[in-house]
Amino acid sequence: MSSHPNSTLRTILFVIFLLLPVFSSTPQSFTEEKLSYYKEIAERIVRESLTEKRGYEWLRELCEIGPRLSGSENLSKAILWAEEKMKQLGLKVWLQPVMVPHWERGDVEEAVIVKSEKYSGKNLSIMALGGSVGTDKEGITAEVIEVKNFEELDERKDEVNGKIVFFSRAMDEGLVNTFSSYGGAVNQRSIGAIYAAKYGAVGVIVRSVTTRRDNVPHTGQMRYDDNLPKIPSVAIGYLDADFLSYALELEPELKINIKLNCKTLPDVLSYNVIADLEGSENPDEIIIVAGHFDSWDAGCGAHDDGAGCIQALETLDLFNRLELKPKRTIRCIFYANEENGVRGGIEYGIYADTVSYEKHIAAIESDRGAYTPRGFTVDADSSVIEIMQQFVPLTGLARAEWIRKGGSGVDISLIKNAKALIGFYPDDQRYFDVHHSANDIFAEVHPREMQLGTAAIAILTFLLSEEF
Amino acid sequence: MSSHPNSTLRTILFVIFLLLPVFSSTPQSFTEEKLSYYKEIAERIVRESLTEKRGYEWLRELCEIGPRLSGSENLSKAILWAEEKMKQLGLKVWLQPVMVPHWERGDVEEAVIVKSEKYSGKNLSIMALGGSVGTDKEGITAEVIEVKNFEELDERKDEVNGKIVFFSRAMDEGLVNTFSSYGGAVNQRSIGAIYAAKYGAVGVIVRSVTTRRDNVPHTGQMRYDDNLPKIPSVAIGYLDADFLSYALELEPELKINIKLNCKTLPDVLSYNVIADLEGSENPDEIIIVAGHFDSWDAGCGAHDDGAGCIQALETLDLFNRLELKPKRTIRCIFYANEENGVRGGIEYGIYADTVSYEKHIAAIESDRGAYTPRGFTVDADSSVIEIMQQFVPLTGLARAEWIRKGGSGVDISLIKNAKALIGFYPDDQRYFDVHHSANDIFAEVHPREMQLGTAAIAILTFLLSEEF
Repeated sequence: MSSHPNSTLRTILFVIFLLLPVFSSTPQSFTEEKLSYYKEIAERIVRESLTEKRGYEWLRELCEIGPRLSGSENLSKAILWAEEKMKQLGLKVWLQPVMVPHWERGDVEEAVIVKSEKYSGKNLSIMALGGSVGTDKEGITAEVIEVKNFEELDERKDEVNGKIVFFSRAMDEGLVNTFSSYGGAVNQRSIGAIYAAKYGAVGVIVRSVTTRRDNVPHTGQMRYDDNLPKIPSVAIGYLDADFLSYALELEPELKINIKLNCKTLPDVLSYNVIADLEGSENPDEIIIVAGHFDSWDAGCGAHDDGAGCIQALETLDLFNRLELKPKRTIRCIFYANEENGVRGGIEYGIYADTVSYEKHIAAIESDRGAYTPRGFTVDADSSVIEIMQQFVPLTGLARAEWIRKGGSGVDISLIKNAKALIGFYPDDQRYFDVHHSANDIFAEVHPREMQLGTAAIAILTFLLSEEF
Repeated sequence: MSSHPNSTLRTILFVIFLLLPVFSSTPQSFTEEKLSYYKEIAERIVRESLTEKRGYEWLRELCEIGPRLSGSENLSKAILWAEEKMKQLGLKVWLQPVMVPHWERGDVEEAVIVKSEKYSGKNLSIMALGGSVGTDKEGITAEVIEVKNFEELDERKDEVNGKIVFFSRAMDEGLVNTFSSYGGAVNQRSIGAIYAAKYGAVGVIVRSVTTRRDNVPHTGQMRYDDNLPKIPSVAIGYLDADFLSYALELEPELKINIKLNCKTLPDVLSYNVIADLEGSENPDEIIIVAGHFDSWDAGCGAHDDGAGCIQALETLDLFNRLELKPKRTIRCIFYANEENGVRGGIEYGIYADTVSYEKHIAAIESDRGAYTPRGFTVDADSSVIEIMQQFVPLTGLARAEWIRKGGSGVDISLIKNAKALIGFYPDDQRYFDVHHSANDIFAEVHPREMQLGTAAIAILTFLLSEEF
C-alpha cells in the first residue's frame, strides 16, 4: 500500500464532500446581528399590537354596520367606512371598481315537515344557500331522500325524481385540521344541486358544514349547471340535520315544504378598497396584505373576513406608529367579493399581471379567522420556502411558529407573477363553529388572539419587504 | 513531506472527529419503522378523542356539581363522583387520604365607597382573596392609598398607616406569554397583605390578575406573616380597578368600607383520587398523568382544573378503548388540594419518594387550561429533553408541536425522583380571562380544543411508557 503526499488531502476533501449534505440541509438563517436587529423590531410590533388593540376596536366599529354581502347597502356603507379610516391613518387610498353579484335572501325562508304522523308542522332551522333560486308562494312540497354523498346518489338515482335530496354527510370530526374536514364535506353544498337536478330532484337540503353542535344553519355559495333545472337549495342546522335523519328513519314518506323568496339581481358596481404605505426605497415593488371585505349575510362577518381585513390594515398602521419605513410598498387590499364570485380577486389579479407597471413580490391573505397564530402556508417553490425559514424565529415571537408549503388565499391566488403567495394560518379549532352563520359576530373574536395575528402578519410583511 | 501509510486514516478520523458535533446536535429520532408504528397509534388516539368526546361529557357532569374548593361539601361530592367514574371505567382506584385547608367565603362580601362627594354608596365588584380573614360586622372603613408595586409602597410607607392599600398593577398585556404576565403581577395578590400590614395598613384591595376587560373579580391564594397583623384582602374587577384609580385621582380622601365574613376553619380530611391502568410488562414503573381536582369557589373550575383532571383520566380510558397495553403502569391522579396549600402534591410526593416501592419514571400535569395544544414544557436535564425530541413528530399530530425546557406542574413538581416532570402547554391567550373567577365555567371549554389536548397528553404518555 503506497500513499501519495496529496492523497491525504484528497481523501479528506472526499470525506467532507460526503458530509456536505449534512451542512447544506441546515435551513437558511440570518446572521446573529441581523437576527437581533429584526428581533427588536418584531418585539416592538408585538407589544404595540397587544397593548393598543386598535384593530380590535376598528373591527367593533365595522361589525356595527352589520353583515356585508356583495351588492348590499351594508357593503357600500362599509366601503365608505374603510376609505375614511384609511385616509385618517394617512394612507394613500384607491377604490378599484369591480362589478359584483347581487343575490338577496328576501324575507321568506322556511322549511316545515308536512304529511307526517308525528312531526307535521315542525319547523326546521334552515337558510337558503347563496345563489339559490326562490320558490313560488306555495313553495315546493316533496318527499325527501337522504344520501351521504354523490356516489350514494348515483346508486339511488331512480328514487330521486320529484324529491328533495337531503345531503347529510357531516364534517369528519376525527381530523385535526378543520379545513380538511370542511374540504371533505363542502361539495354537497357547492354542487349538490347540480347532482340532484340531474336525477330530477326538486330541491336540496344540505347539512350545515360546521363543527358546532347547535342549530344555527351555515350558508355558503352553491352553483347551478345552466343545462339543468335550477332547484331551491338550503342549509339545515346541525341538530335539525340529526333530527331529520331520525325522522326519516321513522317515516320515510314524510314530506317537507320549503318556501324561499331569495333571488339574484343584476350585478352591482362595488370596489376593492386599497391603501398604500409607499416604500422608502423601492416604491414600485409591492408586498400585499389582504382580506376580503364582503361576508355572508348572517352574523357580521367578524372572523370571515372582517378581522382579516383589519389585520391587513393595521399592519400598515403599525409600521407608521412604530416609525418603521419598509423599503417596498406595503399595499393593503380589502377585496370586494370573495364569497360568491371572487370578482375582487379576479379584478386585482388582472391589474397586477397585465396593467400595472409595479412588481408584485409577495402577498399575504388572512382569511381563516382571527385566532391565535400557528404559522403561514406558502404557495411557492420549495427553494423559496426554504429561504423563508429564516423568518420563523421572528414570526414565532408572535406564535406563528412554522412556514410550510400550502394554500394561500382565494383572492391573492389570482396574482400570478409574485414570488410567494402566503396564507396566514391561525388555530383552526373554532373557525367552522362560526363560519358563514349568525354565529360569526364580534363577541366571538378574542382581542389578544386577533392582535397576535396582526403582529405575526406585520412581522412577516416587514421581512418580505426588507429581506425577500 | 512524508506520509505514513496510516496517517491518511488518522487524518480522516480526525476530520470526522471535528465534524462530530454536527452529527450529535442532530436531534434524536425514531427509525422510519418505529415512527410509522407510533404514528398509526397516535392517529387512532387523535381520532377516538375528537370523535367520541367522552372526556368533554364527563367534564359537563363534573361541572354540574359546582365549584370544588378544598374542604367544601362539593369537593367531597366530586371525589365520590370521580371514584365511581374511575371504577366504571374498569380502573384500579385508590383514595389517598390527605388533610386539606378549609377556608370559607361566607355570605357577606362587599366594598362600598363612603365619604365621597361624587361616589358615596357606589358598590365595587370585589371578592375576598383565599385565606383572607373577615371583618367585624361594621367592616373596616378607611382611606385608600394606591400603589403599583412594593417599591412604591416602601417609598410611601409613611402614608400607609390606617389605610387600605390598593395594589393596582395590571398584567403586562404586551407580553405574548400570559403566564409571564401573570407572574409579573401576582405577587400583589399573594404577599401584598404582608407588605401592607408591615406599614400599618388595615386592608388590601388588589387588581384582579386577568386579561379580560370585564368586572368579574378573580380570587386566588394570599398569605400572611404570623408576626404581623392579618388584614382583610380582596380582589377587585378589572373595570372597577380602573374606576377606583380614576376616583382616587379626583378625591384622594374618599373612603371605602369593606365587609367580609370569610374565615378559616380546621383542616378537613380529603383525598387524592388515584386510578391505575396496570403496566403489561413493568407494572412497578409509573407514568403519572395528573391534574388538581380542587378549584376556587366561583365558576366551576372548568379550565382550572377540572378539564386537566378529565384529560388525565381519559388518557387511561383511551388506552383501554383502543386496546393499547402500555408496558408501564399509567397512573391518573386528581390531586386533592393545589389552590390553597398544595397538600395533595406534598402527600403524594412523600409517598412517591419515600414510601412506595414503585419507580416513578415521568409525570405529566395539565393545569394551564384545556385550549388547543402548543407543546410540552419539561423540567429535566437537557440530555433527557433531547431524547424527548423524537416524540415531537408524534405529539405534533395533536398539535403539540414542541417539547422544551420549562416548568411542569405545582403538584407533580413534588415528585423528586422522576426522570422528567412535564407540563402540558396549550394556547394561553384566553386562560387568564377565566382563571380563579366566576368566568371559569363549562361553556368556556371548547370540545375540540379540550379533546385535542387529551390526545396530545395520551400520545406523550404512551411514548413515555414504551420508549423512555
